[in-house]
Amino acid sequence: MTQNFRALITTVPFGEENILPRTMLDAAGIDYLVNPLNRRLKEDELADMVGDFEVLIAGTEPITDKVMSRAKRLKLISRVGIGLDSVDLLAAERRGIKVSYTPDAPAPAVAELTMGLILSLLRSIPIADRRIRAGQWKRESGRRIGECTVGIIGVGRIGTRVLRHLEGFRPRAVLLNDVAPRPMALPASVKWATKEEIYANADVITLHLPLSPHTRMLIGREQLLSMKPDAVLINTSRGGIIDEAALAAVLTEGRLAGAGIDVFEVEPYYGELARIERCVLTAHMGSMSIDCRAQMEIEATEEAVRYFTGQPLAGLVPSLEYDARRLVAVG
Amino acid sequence: MTQNFRALITTVPFGEENILPRTMLDAAGIDYLVNPLNRRLKEDELADMVGDFEVLIAGTEPITDKVMSRAKRLKLISRVGIGLDSVDLLAAERRGIKVSYTPDAPAPAVAELTMGLILSLLRSIPIADRRIRAGQWKRESGRRIGECTVGIIGVGRIGTRVLRHLEGFRPRAVLLNDVAPRPMALPASVKWATKEEIYANADVITLHLPLSPHTRMLIGREQLLSMKPDAVLINTSRGGIIDEAALAAVLTEGRLAGAGIDVFEVEPYYGELARIERCVLTAHMGSMSIDCRAQMEIEATEEAVRYFTGQPLAGLVPSLEYDARRLVAVG
Repeated sequence: MTQNFRALITTVPFGEENILPRTMLDAAGIDYLVNPLNRRLKEDELADMVGDFEVLIAGTEPITDKVMSRAKRLKLISRVGIGLDSVDLLAAERRGIKVSYTPDAPAPAVAELTMGLILSLLRSIPIADRRIRAGQWKRESGRRIGECTVGIIGVGRIGTRVLRHLEGFRPRAVLLNDVAPRPMALPASVKWATKEEIYANADVITLHLPLSPHTRMLIGREQLLSMKPDAVLINTSRGGIIDEAALAAVLTEGRLAGAGIDVFEVEPYYGELARIERCVLTAHMGSMSIDCRAQMEIEATEEAVRYFTGQPLAGLVPSLEYDARRLVAVG
Repeated sequence: MTQNFRALITTVPFGEENILPRTMLDAAGIDYLVNPLNRRLKEDELADMVGDFEVLIAGTEPITDKVMSRAKRLKLISRVGIGLDSVDLLAAERRGIKVSYTPDAPAPAVAELTMGLILSLLRSIPIADRRIRAGQWKRESGRRIGECTVGIIGVGRIGTRVLRHLEGFRPRAVLLNDVAPRPMALPASVKWATKEEIYANADVITLHLPLSPHTRMLIGREQLLSMKPDAVLINTSRGGIIDEAALAAVLTEGRLAGAGIDVFEVEPYYGELARIERCVLTAHMGSMSIDCRAQMEIEATEEAVRYFTGQPLAGLVPSLEYDARRLVAVG
């Protein structure tokens, strides 16, 4: 009798730039299957695929109650990354399925991509590059971070790093917003502010929030129109936080200087923003630096190996994440 | 009798994002003509245009002895920017034409564009953006500055600022090279190095040099092949320092991870690099942030106004720049 596959790896790519995660699974004698569709799975695809696997090493595909109802032997969802919006935590809890994640690993890569998108937009780098490739030479005027007020909405692992990167550019001011402003020593040019103050005053606005019922469609037409007409908006956190249709409409109407978007409501993304010149779009690559991606895959795989070898799990999602879901569930 | 135009402004754009330079000329009663071709002039075009003007408010077009021989009344060349490679300083001196420049104004904008190009290359931002616009979604792996050794060749006004911007990213190491290493307090991860050490060890190499006989074709095939096969190379200083044909050849052969080039031997640039995917090309936009460009135009215009109103000039090119040319001329 051949051994069954015991772990399903849905996230792709996996173990490509750094093969250590695959080596770890092999060394522990764990048979695994990597997502044969080689792209983000839809709910029904995952439900059909999940079968008898005990462990999911998961990306951002929807792991819903329906999926779990089809996963008769599932014991652990080990998320490669930090976002939990794709996982029905309360359903997992009811079904006795543990959920782990790698909250620290992606932050350095996401923060650097954010800086890249800010500079790309302020200086029209992809626009100039496209034009030169099309035989057009035009010196575009831009703005410097050093002349901008930057608003950071969400000052957790990633927002804090963006703040540190920004400091070397001496922005005119940085406005921080979070549901729970933490005690931090801040230079005189950095201060806490409301979202509305950020919309009204920031030249650059960057989002570093989880997707939750509180943040879904946070930035709609009204918020976009309350921003400075020449503001640039960056989202490297989660699709669904910005209303993409409203963003496309507002940009088409000539408002905002640009948008840098790495995450979309539906991925792969082929929507209207891709036809607007002053957008800079990337393919959910925030965490995709070789080092951070490897770290995420390694940490999530280590957790799977702990499960299979009977060691205590080390990356479990903390109870406050479940509590937050319960609060939303009751209203 | 109508008054003749007295100042020729060859640099374009001029007074567009900030109209103050034009206002200053008008207020001083100085009639001026702005380059009617609205692009960088060639030597013969400038020679034909220079006529009876007393002052040139100049871009990077060649201001040669031949041009000056046609400029019977020229008294001042006021360069908008820092580079003097386009001006025959010794011919100007012989003819009694003063040369001024604005060496500090462009540095902040050039340093920020440099950071934008580094991040664009390390994370494949323009590649991802082009692909999504073409209906292709592919998550590209990249590298973080935080994992890189960065080499800065030329540590003057701009290189020093690039170093400061980099520090917020905590690069693994920074290697500095200059003809005259200055005493600077450096963190442990930053040290002086030879160019050869930088070629051999840096993951990111950025050039911040003037164009001179010493730097022309500094980076040829041999130097490119001595770089790490996955290095990225940035040039926001001057065309002519990198051998563009050699760079295109080496990239086509599969060496180097990419090149970010803002300056070219011949501008506008329509050459081979524009057909290589992993180049990021911009249109000599280093100084083109609204604030720095305005500052450059204002400073160069102030100098012109000083000349016309009989005040002492304040932005004259220092004598060591002339001495350097004399050294080259004799040996």
